[in-house]
Amino acid sequence: MKKFNVAIVGARGAVGKKVMELLVERNFPINKLKLLGSEEGSGIQIKFKDEDLITEQAGKGAFKGIDIAFFCVNKEISEKLAPIAIDEGCIVIDNSSCFRMNKEVPLIIPEINPHDIDFHKGIIANPNCSTIQMLVALKPIHDSYNIKRIVVSTYQSVSGSGKKAIDELNDQVKDYIAGNDISNSIYPYQISFNALPHIDDFIENGYTKEEMKMVNETKKILDKNIEVSATAVRIPVIKGHCESINIQTKKKIDPESVKELLSKFKGIKVLDDPLNNLYPIPITAEETDYVYVGRIRKDFTIKNGLNIWVVSDNLRKGAALNAIQIAELLIDRILKY
Amino acid sequence: MKKFNVAIVGARGAVGKKVMELLVERNFPINKLKLLGSEEGSGIQIKFKDEDLITEQAGKGAFKGIDIAFFCVNKEISEKLAPIAIDEGCIVIDNSSCFRMNKEVPLIIPEINPHDIDFHKGIIANPNCSTIQMLVALKPIHDSYNIKRIVVSTYQSVSGSGKKAIDELNDQVKDYIAGNDISNSIYPYQISFNALPHIDDFIENGYTKEEMKMVNETKKILDKNIEVSATAVRIPVIKGHCESINIQTKKKIDPESVKELLSKFKGIKVLDDPLNNLYPIPITAEETDYVYVGRIRKDFTIKNGLNIWVVSDNLRKGAALNAIQIAELLIDRILKY
Repeated sequence: MKKFNVAIVGARGAVGKKVMELLVERNFPINKLKLLGSEEGSGIQIKFKDEDLITEQAGKGAFKGIDIAFFCVNKEISEKLAPIAIDEGCIVIDNSSCFRMNKEVPLIIPEINPHDIDFHKGIIANPNCSTIQMLVALKPIHDSYNIKRIVVSTYQSVSGSGKKAIDELNDQVKDYIAGNDISNSIYPYQISFNALPHIDDFIENGYTKEEMKMVNETKKILDKNIEVSATAVRIPVIKGHCESINIQTKKKIDPESVKELLSKFKGIKVLDDPLNNLYPIPITAEETDYVYVGRIRKDFTIKNGLNIWVVSDNLRKGAALNAIQIAELLIDRILKY
Repeated sequence: MKKFNVAIVGARGAVGKKVMELLVERNFPINKLKLLGSEEGSGIQIKFKDEDLITEQAGKGAFKGIDIAFFCVNKEISEKLAPIAIDEGCIVIDNSSCFRMNKEVPLIIPEINPHDIDFHKGIIANPNCSTIQMLVALKPIHDSYNIKRIVVSTYQSVSGSGKKAIDELNDQVKDYIAGNDISNSIYPYQISFNALPHIDDFIENGYTKEEMKMVNETKKILDKNIEVSATAVRIPVIKGHCESINIQTKKKIDPESVKELLSKFKGIKVLDDPLNNLYPIPITAEETDYVYVGRIRKDFTIKNGLNIWVVSDNLRKGAALNAIQIAELLIDRILKY
């Protein structure tokens, strides 16, 4: 069985760490793992399986001999480093939003559009966390009933903003208990005991970039004819994003058939027995691979309307897991064992 | 100026306490205040202005000589005590859901349907917290543009479940910091660092009673032709409910005109300058009387679509303040000064 040389750029961040963890968990065919980061972040010892790896600076020469690099950094760093990596013969799986809407770059959710990977030119983009879990849940519904329009409101955890945001929430909660003043630096306001309708930057049309990612990535991945109206909100949860999704389909839809359809779809777990308090919640999704769907019910206010509630671990299926599944798909369809 | 004998039933709960506080703050024309509660809750000394009041047991005889009673208890207790109070000549302003949909009972938001109070037969119902803030925000929009359909997802604080729920969240956060196991009794799961798509009981159609309150109360208060599709979610916030609201109107609508319209409406404060991080959040709304509206933007996916984000203190405008405003309206229109 062929093994591959793999690099992680940004190995010490929340997503980078999760990629390392999942490479072991999924027994990914690794020959050599290289951990790359900033200049200040290099020279640090990190354990991987039985080895002690030392982080190295990402830059020219760092990607020579590497087959696949997981980029777990922001879009500015991705933009700078991806061309270098490609030049040195490496395939980049990029977690940032940098290349997602680039027509030359496939944007992949393996359960939805695996064959798009065949057209890659060195970069494969991993979609936004909120988009991934929404589209996994909606793919089987769209295939059967043809979705026209989506109205979605998100409930997103702080881990989506990285390790420092998790620390900020923890610190704020500690200060609250101690009766100290609460300070903030990652978010414009305290996130503890609060809710912020503000994820990523605002643009001129009044939406945030996060909201527009859900609009545009849905069109690129699932169907360009689907209209999405999104409101993205940060809440004081550590891991796991929730989404309240309202859809209208072209074909007649009923909740019972949808439940059955979703139950059969790979990667989805239906939790929907509300009278017994069974519905998806972040603490159930935490550290698991599934996209959980519940509260599946008819929207009585419109023809062919449906409401669902979707929860998933944003660091796993929303980021690291989907990136590794892309790498597995790449090996399966292109690099071959 | 005429003064009134007032009673608070459930004076030691979260809403009851807030009613007491607001009676002072608003300089309500009180002659005598009587604090009523359960048998176990009687005989307790509570300060009101310069007086030390002693709680008494609610029941037969307790409402004699009382003009207005604020009922801040659950619907079972309201159902039992309201007929007694009426019988003893007292007008009941009820915070529970017990009488809201009763055709003989006016359901009042003073900014919206003040004249409905004229038909009262002894009970006036205070609407659900989530309904009040949504309808205050939507009233001026409906008057100008005629709302056809609302899709709303809520982000509700624990104070909506009363004082014990605030204690439960605080205890859970303390246990989390101390590294102890987290226990729960008010909610079916931990609420700290979590989100529960479950407020009040589930009914057969898959919705919760909380969600159906938003549907039915909107029709009774604002317009029976408005369709509401609701998802109600509890999040770990102490005070202040948020709502992500998507509407479609019959008339052509544009965000700038809506912003102007809302700015002029009594009880609303528009906070909408996202590029300067200005949007409503729970910690801004806490302990204030306004319904805050922001993120006012066109929904590009539908004809005459609009998205808004609404936040208000659920114990104030969502409960105690609206109840007192009903009492003020009652004095103004019926009891007279």
